[in-house]
Amino acid sequence: MDLTTVKSIYRDTAAYASKEVTIGGWIRTMRVSKNFGFIELNDGSFFKNLQVVFEAEALSNYTEITKQGVGAALIVKGILMETPDAKQSFELKATEIQVEGTSAPEYPLQKKRHGVEFLRQIAYLRPRTNMFSATFRVRSLIAFAIHNFFQERGFVYAHTPIITGSDCEGAGEMFRVTTLDLNNLPKTEDGKIDFSKDFFGKETNLTVSGQLSAETFAMAFRNVYTFGPTFRAENSNTARHAAEFWMIEPEMAFADLEDNMELAEDMLKYIIRYVLENAPEEMEFFNSFVDKTLLERLQNILDNEFGRVTYTKAVELLIESGQVFEYPVEWGIDLQTEHERYLTEQIFKKPVFVTNYPKDIKAFYMRMNEDNKTVAAMDLLVPGVGEIIGGSQREERLDLLEQRMDELGLNKDDYWWYLDLRKYGGTRHAGFGLGFERAVMYLTGMGNIRDVLPYPRTVKNAEF
Amino acid sequence: MDLTTVKSIYRDTAAYASKEVTIGGWIRTMRVSKNFGFIELNDGSFFKNLQVVFEAEALSNYTEITKQGVGAALIVKGILMETPDAKQSFELKATEIQVEGTSAPEYPLQKKRHGVEFLRQIAYLRPRTNMFSATFRVRSLIAFAIHNFFQERGFVYAHTPIITGSDCEGAGEMFRVTTLDLNNLPKTEDGKIDFSKDFFGKETNLTVSGQLSAETFAMAFRNVYTFGPTFRAENSNTARHAAEFWMIEPEMAFADLEDNMELAEDMLKYIIRYVLENAPEEMEFFNSFVDKTLLERLQNILDNEFGRVTYTKAVELLIESGQVFEYPVEWGIDLQTEHERYLTEQIFKKPVFVTNYPKDIKAFYMRMNEDNKTVAAMDLLVPGVGEIIGGSQREERLDLLEQRMDELGLNKDDYWWYLDLRKYGGTRHAGFGLGFERAVMYLTGMGNIRDVLPYPRTVKNAEF
Repeated sequence: MDLTTVKSIYRDTAAYASKEVTIGGWIRTMRVSKNFGFIELNDGSFFKNLQVVFEAEALSNYTEITKQGVGAALIVKGILMETPDAKQSFELKATEIQVEGTSAPEYPLQKKRHGVEFLRQIAYLRPRTNMFSATFRVRSLIAFAIHNFFQERGFVYAHTPIITGSDCEGAGEMFRVTTLDLNNLPKTEDGKIDFSKDFFGKETNLTVSGQLSAETFAMAFRNVYTFGPTFRAENSNTARHAAEFWMIEPEMAFADLEDNMELAEDMLKYIIRYVLENAPEEMEFFNSFVDKTLLERLQNILDNEFGRVTYTKAVELLIESGQVFEYPVEWGIDLQTEHERYLTEQIFKKPVFVTNYPKDIKAFYMRMNEDNKTVAAMDLLVPGVGEIIGGSQREERLDLLEQRMDELGLNKDDYWWYLDLRKYGGTRHAGFGLGFERAVMYLTGMGNIRDVLPYPRTVKNAEF
Repeated sequence: MDLTTVKSIYRDTAAYASKEVTIGGWIRTMRVSKNFGFIELNDGSFFKNLQVVFEAEALSNYTEITKQGVGAALIVKGILMETPDAKQSFELKATEIQVEGTSAPEYPLQKKRHGVEFLRQIAYLRPRTNMFSATFRVRSLIAFAIHNFFQERGFVYAHTPIITGSDCEGAGEMFRVTTLDLNNLPKTEDGKIDFSKDFFGKETNLTVSGQLSAETFAMAFRNVYTFGPTFRAENSNTARHAAEFWMIEPEMAFADLEDNMELAEDMLKYIIRYVLENAPEEMEFFNSFVDKTLLERLQNILDNEFGRVTYTKAVELLIESGQVFEYPVEWGIDLQTEHERYLTEQIFKKPVFVTNYPKDIKAFYMRMNEDNKTVAAMDLLVPGVGEIIGGSQREERLDLLEQRMDELGLNKDDYWWYLDLRKYGGTRHAGFGLGFERAVMYLTGMGNIRDVLPYPRTVKNAEF
């Protein structure tokens, strides 16, 4: 259909002033009197509504229109009138209104404000509220900003597999993928389940990370990134954990930890700038109704070089601070959110990279430092959240990598191709992972991961 | 590391001529003599190699370099020399070469040409060959072109769920997702498997389509698209089927079949133009070594308005043609690839939309036409392939949708939210699905889906 969008009217009002336009959209609110009425119409193209004024005199179906419920779909033809003295600077004066789709009286989104828990139960309707309209619009823009960022820099986008026969980090509870009939499982002679009869001829799971595959591509394309869904079957019912979430994992050949930190800082600043430029209305909304420190916090990120501190120094700073933490601080502990937030919020007052963590709390593939105690890891901590990015320089030295895998009891045969990369022109290389939903939460101020995923999957919940 | 990319040298040679640059890359080939040698170095930033010339006189480690195997990683410092009389118009005259990573003698990618079957067995190395370097580079560009296309037009990118409790099309074999211990399955009192004990508290599968979820978002944002992995547990071992593949599914509110066809045509042309502009070297390669009709075929698409024909008329044309097909043609049959290709290649000689298919061969959600026999479906057929896009206007009339679901024996309770969309401001709407790998195959000429996926998942195969 040939419809004008509300967005184009907001962005270039002069071009439409006093002209006839036709808009298709949904009623957000309506006020009517005997002779005229006002409709706040949202057409989905834009966060804001268009005010429609309609008069009994002008419309043969005036009564029908006044009876439409919230949520009904209309096609409105009219003249765009500038109204410099009114609250909104223009409105659409209707000359014709067609009802495209009625809305039943039990429509759950009436004018009052609804709680997020209630809205999660009607997740298929919540994008029609201001909060979720803003959230999913910004989510889309962040996704695009990430692609833009990497493509501008020549990174190749690699679709690493979702179904996998290997467990990347040797950690994390995984979801099994199978086509076996659970009521009639095939068995081998010795009574075990016969996975050779399964679809892939072996046990398979949903991926927890595309990193190892991304490394293979980095050894061909130098700079690559993944952006896809990843899965954790963790039984943790928190505001920050979902069983299905999206992750971005860049990987660079001929790159060390320093290059990695530069990339992460550039990326985060790029995304923030992109969203502030492309969704100013949504960001104002979040700043007014969700987190009043949001815009200041994001501006603070743009205005500052990120801090850098080693884990060892960070532990010293935390101990020296005299702050009492729930989990006492000593060298060797995995930093908790309380420690991370204290570092970035109180000590550095800006985002900070913590580097060179003890090897025992990090993954097998991270590059061993000369002290033989720490690895070339980096976590980016940001105010208000704590860790948002985790990465490392990878161990490119075959002997050291194998030694570490032996120490951790990993089966090297499962990683033959990953090890082979170190035999065939392996280079120093580095990369990181950004949890996409964490980024969306951070940029919007939304506090629960269930509210930044269209249809969240969490423990005991896979609705819609 | 501060390295110049080979791509930037090719794109702006003048800027680097006679200047010192440092390149990191991998040896594709090397020829040496007593006093000098040539290396074709690929740095991953670009499809083409950079020729490096190095001399015994200039390098203290000349002998070490000459002993490096194919695939070894080097960091080469040198002066970029213009060589207008040579085959390549410039080369890098090395002043210093460091070995970043050696390559073992058993490196499988030696200079000779390898078959694609062999290369699939070493999928972690094949991006280092010309064919797969070109393929995965173009794959990345097509993905980005798709995002560009939709974002420029204000479409919201929606991440529809991967793990699902519902079977979208009521068709297709699905992969089960579970965390139950298969060796010790929990049972209910009546001896059935107790899925309430499973991670999500019910049976879940991998999605076969994001369309139904996308429709919910279209009713809020008007124009949306998905781009994510989808899964089919079909036991079909063909060159066109993978168990895991990516799909793009736009959905538009206030849109009919006509709008849908326009969008599909614009999108396909946009992608082709984008790839021709941004990967001319790769496209030349495909045209020379994979499919000699490729560029002509793509140009033909750009130059022509796509044809449009109803299913009923298409069947008439096929019968009138007198052509003998393996599957005889009569009204009501599902068109086979042989029919599709004859239509687009012999009759229309360009891409053609076939519309208004018999309801019995199409999905329940497609909009019933007034004849009550056909639905507002569209398939886009393209020369060389057959169907590449399938879509429809959706049934927005609740009574007709319910009637159709009853006829097909679908359980309406499973679709409560999908049906609700028709009660709360439902609009006419339409959308389609593009199989991403099919598009990559079409744009590259690559004939097997296993060769356009980084790590393909097919029957009995989930390696890497």
